[in-house]
Amino acid sequence: MFEFDTGLSSIRRLQEYVKDKKEVEIKLSTDDLLVGRLIWQDQNCLCLVDQYENTTLIWQQAIVYLKPKA
Amino acid sequence: MFEFDTGLSSIRRLQEYVKDKKEVEIKLSTDDLLVGRLIWQDQNCLCLVDQYENTTLIWQQAIVYLKPKA
Amino acid sequence: MFEFDTGLSSIRRLQEYVKDKKEVEIKLSTDDLLVGRLIWQDQNCLCLVDQYENTTLIWQQAIVYLKPKA
Amino acid sequence: MFEFDTGLSSIRRLQEYVKDKKEVEIKLSTDDLLVGRLIWQDQNCLCLVDQYENTTLIWQQAIVYLKPKA
Amino acid sequence: MFEFDTGLSSIRRLQEYVKDKKEVEIKLSTDDLLVGRLIWQDQNCLCLVDQYENTTLIWQQAIVYLKPKA
Amino acid sequence: MFEFDTGLSSIRRLQEYVKDKKEVEIKLSTDDLLVGRLIWQDQNCLCLVDQYENTTLIWQQAIVYLKPKA
Repeated sequence: MFEFDTGLSSIRRLQEYVKDKKEVEIKLSTDDLLVGRLIWQDQNCLCLVDQYENTTLIWQQAIVYLKPKA
Repeated sequence: MFEFDTGLSSIRRLQEYVKDKKEVEIKLSTDDLLVGRLIWQDQNCLCLVDQYENTTLIWQQAIVYLKPKA
Repeated sequence: MFEFDTGLSSIRRLQEYVKDKKEVEIKLSTDDLLVGRLIWQDQNCLCLVDQYENTTLIWQQAIVYLKPKA
Repeated sequence: MFEFDTGLSSIRRLQEYVKDKKEVEIKLSTDDLLVGRLIWQDQNCLCLVDQYENTTLIWQQAIVYLKPKA
Repeated sequence: MFEFDTGLSSIRRLQEYVKDKKEVEIKLSTDDLLVGRLIWQDQNCLCLVDQYENTTLIWQQAIVYLKPKA
Repeated sequence: MFEFDTGLSSIRRLQEYVKDKKEVEIKLSTDDLLVGRLIWQDQNCLCLVDQYENTTLIWQQAIVYLKPKA
C-alpha cells in the first residue's frame, strides 16, 4: 500500500515533478512504459497527461519505477 | 489496497466517469485491455458493461491503468 | 486485501451469483480462465465447482475479473 | 493478506485437507503446479510434503488456486 | 504482508533453517531460483549467502516457495 | 507493505548501503535489473542514481532482490 505522507522523500519528489510539470517515464508491472506529465498523485493513483493531452489514471500498485525523461 | 475515500482525486475522477457513462479502456495485470462503461466502483471492484451489455466485475488489485476511450 | 463488507456492491453481486448458482468465468493472474458455479466466498477465497463437480479454492489475491458465462 | 480466522470457510476447508492428509494440487503465481499433502497452514505459508517426503514452504501470497488431486 | 510472529510455524521453520545454516532453494516471482544459506529473516526480507559468500537481500513479497536443498 | 522500522535488519542493511554509497543491483518484478547507488529509502520507494547521474524512483512493491555489485 502506498503511504501518502508528505513527510516522505518519495511523496515530496513526486510532488516536485507535479509542480515542475516534469516529463517522466513510468514503467508498469505489465512492462508498459508510459511517458507524460504528472498532473496529480494520491494513495491510489498517479494521473498522467501525454503529448496529445490524453489523461491516464495509473494505479499505484502497478508501478515499478519512475524517472524524469532524459 | 484501494483506499475508498471520496475526498481523493482518484475516486472523484472514477465517480465522474460513472456519472457520465464514459467509455473507458482498462489495462489489467494479465495484459488484457477491457473496454466498456463504468457502472459502479467500490474498494474491491469496478463494474464494467461492454457494448453487448455484458457485465464484468474487475478486481481493483488487477488494474494497471484506466483511460477514457479516445 | 479483499474487503468482506456485505454492504459493498461487489460482495452483494457475488452473493447473488452464489444464490442463483450462476455459471461464471474467472480470469486469474496466471491467465487461467476457470469456469464453474460459485458455492461460497470469504475474505480469502472463492469456492468454485466445475461441470464434473470438482471443487477449486481460488485465492482472492489471484483474481483479475469475473463474469457470468454468456 | 491471508486472514487466518478459523471461522472462515477457506481456513476450515484447508484444515480438513490437513486432517485428512488429502493430496492436493497447488497452482502458483509463477505457473508452477505443486502436488503433495498439506501438513500445516498459517497466515504466511502452507507446508506441503511431496511423494518423496520433501517439504516445501509455500508463501500464501503466491497461491492462485488449490484443489484436491482428482 | 509477512506476519513476523515467532509463534507461527512458518517463522519457526525459517528460524530453524537459519540456526542450522541449512542450504535452501528459494523460488521468486520472476521465476529466479536462488540457492544459499539463510543468514537472517525479518518482516521485509530474507538474507541469503551463496557459495561465493555473496549476500542477497530477498524481498518477502517476491517469494513463491522455499525448500531445503535435496 | 514495506515495514520502515530502523530496528529491522533489512532497513539497517539498506541504510549501510546508502551511507557507503555502495553500488548495488536491484532485480524488479518485470525482470529488469537496475544498477546504481542508493541515495535514500522510505516506505514507498528506493532512490537509485546510475553512472550517468540519472535518478530513478523504484517502488518497494516491485523489488524482488537487491545485492551489492560484485
